[in-house]
Amino acid sequence: MIELSVGDSAKFSKTISESDVYLYAGITGDLNPAHIDKEYASGTIFNDRLCHGMLLAGLISGVLGTKLPGPGTIYINQTLTFLKPVYIGDTISAVVEITKIIKGKQAKVSTKCINQLGDIVLDGEALVSLPRDRSLKK
Amino acid sequence: MIELSVGDSAKFSKTISESDVYLYAGITGDLNPAHIDKEYASGTIFNDRLCHGMLLAGLISGVLGTKLPGPGTIYINQTLTFLKPVYIGDTISAVVEITKIIKGKQAKVSTKCINQLGDIVLDGEALVSLPRDRSLKK
Amino acid sequence: MIELSVGDSAKFSKTISESDVYLYAGITGDLNPAHIDKEYASGTIFNDRLCHGMLLAGLISGVLGTKLPGPGTIYINQTLTFLKPVYIGDTISAVVEITKIIKGKQAKVSTKCINQLGDIVLDGEALVSLPRDRSLKK
Amino acid sequence: MIELSVGDSAKFSKTISESDVYLYAGITGDLNPAHIDKEYASGTIFNDRLCHGMLLAGLISGVLGTKLPGPGTIYINQTLTFLKPVYIGDTISAVVEITKIIKGKQAKVSTKCINQLGDIVLDGEALVSLPRDRSLKK
Repeated sequence: MIELSVGDSAKFSKTISESDVYLYAGITGDLNPAHIDKEYASGTIFNDRLCHGMLLAGLISGVLGTKLPGPGTIYINQTLTFLKPVYIGDTISAVVEITKIIKGKQAKVSTKCINQLGDIVLDGEALVSLPRDRSLKK
Repeated sequence: MIELSVGDSAKFSKTISESDVYLYAGITGDLNPAHIDKEYASGTIFNDRLCHGMLLAGLISGVLGTKLPGPGTIYINQTLTFLKPVYIGDTISAVVEITKIIKGKQAKVSTKCINQLGDIVLDGEALVSLPRDRSLKK
Repeated sequence: MIELSVGDSAKFSKTISESDVYLYAGITGDLNPAHIDKEYASGTIFNDRLCHGMLLAGLISGVLGTKLPGPGTIYINQTLTFLKPVYIGDTISAVVEITKIIKGKQAKVSTKCINQLGDIVLDGEALVSLPRDRSLKK
Repeated sequence: MIELSVGDSAKFSKTISESDVYLYAGITGDLNPAHIDKEYASGTIFNDRLCHGMLLAGLISGVLGTKLPGPGTIYINQTLTFLKPVYIGDTISAVVEITKIIKGKQAKVSTKCINQLGDIVLDGEALVSLPRDRSLKK
């Protein structure tokens, strides 16, 4: 079993490219003009094309599944509160921190996405099943 | 303002391709071997490569933003419970249904992803701000 | 059978991204330097990299197949006249309008792509077979 | 000026992959379930997911712009008749042949897509402006 303590944290950062947003739109079918139509977007209160909020949730999922707790983690649930718009070109850090370990089998994790200005753009909490040899291997 | 009633629903369906999962892995950095390593996956309790659960949440976001309530919708929050594994090749329908309209300005929405066998694989609830000319246009 | 009248119209708009043009080049093998070589393009009368004209025809096909007449439509033929260059970064609206319904089974459709300045960049006409339960379902 | 004669021909062949169809769907917004939903497609007369017909037209455009007449060619118009369904996994050859040269400045071109069984799946004719130093260079 992996060693894990409350307070452990990990992060992954990337600058959101136009191609990230466009490919994500195609994969998910989310062709909302707020994401792919500059003319439409310039007429909204946001002024420019936004990154899909749920794409950012994917960064969080990535940290959980590859870094902390890492491969073998099973997602149970996740809450997401979308706090600020994210634009193409913003640099986002997905930060996760273990807040509780439940009977050595599950963990509560604080999950945030933070932009290059230090603003929390996405906040939430995940419950995951911890990777364990006996549960995951056949 | 758009006309919306409790009980209104919309859906979007697609067969999850290998390229969906691989491109999504690249965009989000979620290179968890459960999604992109057949050898690793065949040694887990799931036996094969899984679709990222959060990719499916993107299908839900797409229905909210393009169909119901549609363009101009602003995501406030979303809960997600991951119930069953989804494999490359599964056909998933994201189904949303308005469950409550709050002061004509916000809506609670039931959000589910259902596989080709009729199993609910992802369940949750969204709170969104409804598209309105005065809130969205400059 | 779906209800359809002469004069019905639908559209889809997007800003053409560099990634759209590059992925399209890779999928179709259309590696014409006019689309993917900035140095070459700057030496032509167009001055900059162009979007593939046939990519824009794909936006038209998308409106026909997803919106009007919608899923179940079968393409019979299409004429395309390329009127103006389209650059990476232009925002294009594909607009289709039913011009004739033939024996309730086929439709003639006016098909145009219009840029952010209101110029028609691509003009043409489609003949489609209308979606019908008895023709499309097994 | 390039040398060109009636009867000159060129072709480009590729096996249409699932990722070709899925990326094309995302780029063009053509999320018609006939292309991306195996369950839906299995209930149609086509039985399985189809390649977008207009994607094949992109193969033709590619041959015109990269091989014959090649870089510097300007598309004037194209007719397209869709004759047979093309499935993911089919191998398609786009074949173009010069049928007429007009005053040394334009060419009529026969344009076909042929599948691995030798069936013509897409037929049409293009009119192009030939690449010439004085028209294309600044």
